[in-house]
Amino acid sequence: MADLPKGNAAIGQSGGPTAVINQSLVACALALKKLPRVKKVLGMRHGVNGLVKDQIVDLGRVREAHLREVAATPSAALGSSRDKPDRAYCEQILASCRKHEIRYFFYIGGNDSSDTCRIVNELARGSGYELRCFHIPKTVDNDLMLSDHTPGFPSAARFLALAFMSDSLDNASLPGVKINVVMGRHAGFLTGAAALARGEGKDADRNGPHLIYVPEVPFDSQRFVEDVERVYARLGRCQVAVSEGVQNAAGAPIATTLVEGLDRDAHGNVQLSGVAALGDALADLVKKNVKVGGRAIRVRADTFGYLQRCWPDPSPVDAKEARQVATFAVRMAARGELSGSVAIVRTRNKPYVSAMKQIELSDVAGKTRHMPGEFLDGHNNVSRSFVTYCRPLVGRLPVMARL
Amino acid sequence: MADLPKGNAAIGQSGGPTAVINQSLVACALALKKLPRVKKVLGMRHGVNGLVKDQIVDLGRVREAHLREVAATPSAALGSSRDKPDRAYCEQILASCRKHEIRYFFYIGGNDSSDTCRIVNELARGSGYELRCFHIPKTVDNDLMLSDHTPGFPSAARFLALAFMSDSLDNASLPGVKINVVMGRHAGFLTGAAALARGEGKDADRNGPHLIYVPEVPFDSQRFVEDVERVYARLGRCQVAVSEGVQNAAGAPIATTLVEGLDRDAHGNVQLSGVAALGDALADLVKKNVKVGGRAIRVRADTFGYLQRCWPDPSPVDAKEARQVATFAVRMAARGELSGSVAIVRTRNKPYVSAMKQIELSDVAGKTRHMPGEFLDGHNNVSRSFVTYCRPLVGRLPVMARL
Repeated sequence: MADLPKGNAAIGQSGGPTAVINQSLVACALALKKLPRVKKVLGMRHGVNGLVKDQIVDLGRVREAHLREVAATPSAALGSSRDKPDRAYCEQILASCRKHEIRYFFYIGGNDSSDTCRIVNELARGSGYELRCFHIPKTVDNDLMLSDHTPGFPSAARFLALAFMSDSLDNASLPGVKINVVMGRHAGFLTGAAALARGEGKDADRNGPHLIYVPEVPFDSQRFVEDVERVYARLGRCQVAVSEGVQNAAGAPIATTLVEGLDRDAHGNVQLSGVAALGDALADLVKKNVKVGGRAIRVRADTFGYLQRCWPDPSPVDAKEARQVATFAVRMAARGELSGSVAIVRTRNKPYVSAMKQIELSDVAGKTRHMPGEFLDGHNNVSRSFVTYCRPLVGRLPVMARL
Repeated sequence: MADLPKGNAAIGQSGGPTAVINQSLVACALALKKLPRVKKVLGMRHGVNGLVKDQIVDLGRVREAHLREVAATPSAALGSSRDKPDRAYCEQILASCRKHEIRYFFYIGGNDSSDTCRIVNELARGSGYELRCFHIPKTVDNDLMLSDHTPGFPSAARFLALAFMSDSLDNASLPGVKINVVMGRHAGFLTGAAALARGEGKDADRNGPHLIYVPEVPFDSQRFVEDVERVYARLGRCQVAVSEGVQNAAGAPIATTLVEGLDRDAHGNVQLSGVAALGDALADLVKKNVKVGGRAIRVRADTFGYLQRCWPDPSPVDAKEARQVATFAVRMAARGELSGSVAIVRTRNKPYVSAMKQIELSDVAGKTRHMPGEFLDGHNNVSRSFVTYCRPLVGRLPVMARL
């Protein structure tokens, strides 16, 4: 421990918030406070954006009881950022670290955030400024490499299981076609988690969702209409889970093929969340093409939107692991590691047990994990093994009894 | 009790489901089973639609333990219906009652359902067939006359309080304008319930929702843009709650003035739920008209959709009262009343106490209650007294701690 630099530590939160990202923040802050070589524990307001603008809060001055309340609060308490720093921006970050005597840099986020970590780490090494950079994983999309799953995903998956369960009953009460659009630009894990809503009882094969479309499988509008028609003929209703990021065979997002004038964000990505056009367009497609006895059927669409990532009923496993990844990252720093990220490893499925593992920043930085083939079942469903994978993560689900 | 007719009882569920409508169903069924003059307790599948088509389930044969699980399950377990019966349809209902020896008719629903009850009751009297008709109130819209509030509303209001709390934190994390569209065609109670998300702490006047628009107050697009601009200038962000049914001064739904091609339902009403066009249109309005430093700002819209009425986390007060209105209706039948509906009366606010009261079918049938003036504050907010009215109904809300 003698070689640990003495100085301040800074923590930032980046990307889309989650229901448990504050668990990571608070666990990281509390663990850092115990390190003798760490003087101040600073929080960056809105990620690196606040760091370069000197918008910094001294977390050491916040009462521990209040921090524990913050931990249990969804969304990013420090504020988050969508900035995707290039080298020039990262130079500014490094300059701020020098200015504030920051020797330990912890960044909680997804693949873009780990990439920021990686660049800052490289620049620091190159410039001879001693800075230890650690990435703490977080993303509802579950799309980080080498991790069994990512903190944030289980709580969002829990929300979706509850949402599809109750919405399926609503759809059974007033039968029709119900299309629910789920977050997930490139990875279908969240949309797939809707399958948990089917339960395991005797009604499982009649319960929704009846069709699941993920970005990993090319989406064909004609085939979609036929799928809906087939389910409707069998059950007199149909509940659909579809990723906001579903793409056609050429890789173009269906949202852009069906709808004009969608916005793009700072990363050049088409804005898919906070806009409901895809759901409405798919509903129109069904209304126009699916007739029963020559008559139009009842079709509705909901886009679940931001509630998916901030609903205040986190999965207990998720809350715990969000703390564990953060304390593990601090332990990496304490034992003298120069940089790194953390992966969650599942050591047992039933009962569920996980462990934390150190990985390189470059293992995760800027890369996207997709649903493996074994998690898919045909073009419109997820597999049994995916459901087995998800189930222990989301906590207890209520019993839904039917007459 | 000697004058009570001997025969079967039938229960139906109608209109939009709620998180607690099965509490009413099960409480009604269990209470009816205890009445010596009632032979069978029948359930209509999909309301009167199932009754006239002989789609009937014998609730007496369902185990009580299973019924109690059904009670705790959201949505209408018997199935619901949007049929709005005219006299001819009601003649068919009456014929089915004769055929199935139904002497007690219980219909759980809103103002359309109470109107069905009223017509069936009149026809029965006119025809000399002894039938006792009772309406059991239910509607998330909270728009029934003479009731302090209606079963279903508190649970939907709870969902909205939780949704706006967590979404406001999400919006504070990644600042921008966030527009959330809430159910409510004619009455703004549900949209107003978003105000509970502000809490009562020191942050209450900075917490969202910052603007609330209900159908009772004419909506002006230009004024809306100015409102958003003002809040954004003060806080750097703005969370908006807007009813799906907001109207302009001429009484036209804003959804129809901004968006073309909306569907109409069997009642001739424009379809406002299950379509997200209003939110997207309002977001476009803000994007085009609100610039900060000449630059466009981040604007997102979510339409909360059907999750509002079926989320499986009901308010405890609501679950209890949904049982109470039903057992009270059965008690009315047991003491020889010929027809009637039930209103909830608030006898104390703190601690909250309520009582059930008999009212006439004609008091409630086909009528819509709107938010009274005292519940409104200007054109874009609800009053303190509305928040005081809502608070005891929704149960405990989580603490949201900020840094």
